[in-house]
Amino acid sequence: MNRSEIINQIKSKKSFLSVGLDTDINKIPKHLFKYENPVLEFNKQIIDATQDLCISYKINTAFYECNGITGWKSLIDTYNYLPKDTFSIADAKRGDIGNTSAMYAKAFFDPKSSDMDFDSVTVAPYMGKDSVTPFLGFDNKWVILLALTSNEGSYDFQQLRDGEYKFFEHVIRKSSEWADASRMMYVVGATRGEGFLEIRKHAPDNFLLVPGVGAQGGSLKEVCKYGMNKDCGLIVNSSRAIIYASPGEDFAERAREEAKKVQEEMSQELSRIGF
Amino acid sequence: MNRSEIINQIKSKKSFLSVGLDTDINKIPKHLFKYENPVLEFNKQIIDATQDLCISYKINTAFYECNGITGWKSLIDTYNYLPKDTFSIADAKRGDIGNTSAMYAKAFFDPKSSDMDFDSVTVAPYMGKDSVTPFLGFDNKWVILLALTSNEGSYDFQQLRDGEYKFFEHVIRKSSEWADASRMMYVVGATRGEGFLEIRKHAPDNFLLVPGVGAQGGSLKEVCKYGMNKDCGLIVNSSRAIIYASPGEDFAERAREEAKKVQEEMSQELSRIGF
Repeated sequence: MNRSEIINQIKSKKSFLSVGLDTDINKIPKHLFKYENPVLEFNKQIIDATQDLCISYKINTAFYECNGITGWKSLIDTYNYLPKDTFSIADAKRGDIGNTSAMYAKAFFDPKSSDMDFDSVTVAPYMGKDSVTPFLGFDNKWVILLALTSNEGSYDFQQLRDGEYKFFEHVIRKSSEWADASRMMYVVGATRGEGFLEIRKHAPDNFLLVPGVGAQGGSLKEVCKYGMNKDCGLIVNSSRAIIYASPGEDFAERAREEAKKVQEEMSQELSRIGF
Repeated sequence: MNRSEIINQIKSKKSFLSVGLDTDINKIPKHLFKYENPVLEFNKQIIDATQDLCISYKINTAFYECNGITGWKSLIDTYNYLPKDTFSIADAKRGDIGNTSAMYAKAFFDPKSSDMDFDSVTVAPYMGKDSVTPFLGFDNKWVILLALTSNEGSYDFQQLRDGEYKFFEHVIRKSSEWADASRMMYVVGATRGEGFLEIRKHAPDNFLLVPGVGAQGGSLKEVCKYGMNKDCGLIVNSSRAIIYASPGEDFAERAREEAKKVQEEMSQELSRIGF
């Protein structure tokens, strides 16, 4: 999916919401266990209930890998159930030496090899250029590189400073030599409104994937105030606050209500930039 | 597997070799395609041919993920074929916010959940403490944290300097507050002999997992000169130079010959510390 297609979708749905499918088999409603694959059934119902309100789904691979073969099959089946007009994110935080990153790229971007054809994958920057560029060798696919994350541990290393810039600023500046805003996004946690000012100094045009709204406590208003650009430039993810809105049989309906609340707030923010 | 068990194995086998199962279906000998699962058959024959010469097997998850369900099944089946007295490494480079890293830990450390029970997993440090500590909640399991890697991209960020220390030194110093040398190892590329001096300043006791000997050009002698400690403190991995020693039907025999050469060199180095 290219940049124009993402922007057009934001305009037509008046939303820049990504729904995070961090589906934990121990947290889904009990009535789903009558289905052959409860996790897949949960995901399908969440997708059916939210697809007109969001522009993207983010699948967190950890929640699937932990269930062995069944889990990996659920990952593939969930990917294949995603509406093709939504932007799909493999939230996998991969990254290794070049020949290995090339294999991870095949895992998420080459359906002939892996049965999955995601639009994007999240990548960890620690190993530098040759760990990232193999993911850039696919048409209309995106790297979403970790920059400034939303967790407490982000203070351990991302905020170290070399010369004029912090470490996460070096990551953005250096990686922008590898791909421009038509191929590269950055992960920036919603828990730091003012952090977006530092990000936008170095990445004025890039889309930012923003986790941490909802369960992790980030404010959408703050994110938009400091992070939005003329093309919106934001994909805001919410996982737990939406998918676990109810533990009962009404989980999908309640997930829709939560997604709708976020979408309405997003619609107001988008009107400020004429979308 | 605890530290004493690793050391005892090094002493009895006179080896600190890890064989890397970076098994690429496009590189294995053609005659194996008569088997139902050629990758698994390749791995089994490599393991049978090398297990008395190495103390560890490192499975690079990327080479399995890229083959979809079949690949993930090969990963599990290969894990389960490993001799239980060898130190097993899931070379997965994982790391995410706490609740997600906990799921990755289950994927590699909790056989009830995932059918895999590795001794260790490689972890990327960028997201800090809460991305690493969930892997430390399992008895006799190890985190192998990326410190100074062997690839060209390691110069992009790992060598940045904040104050007295480089970024990779901050990673080692900070992470040594989370676990000691009985639970934490570091990845240090073999392509930089002198780099081991900087590592050993901060991690005198930890075992180091050293990729890059062989195909990537690192010298075992240099690694030992600068990196060995009184307990050996090194697990040196070789992947391509061993497993692809021959493209023909003699691949396992030739892999054994290559492993034997490395083991003999290791035996000499070990004699210097009385092992």
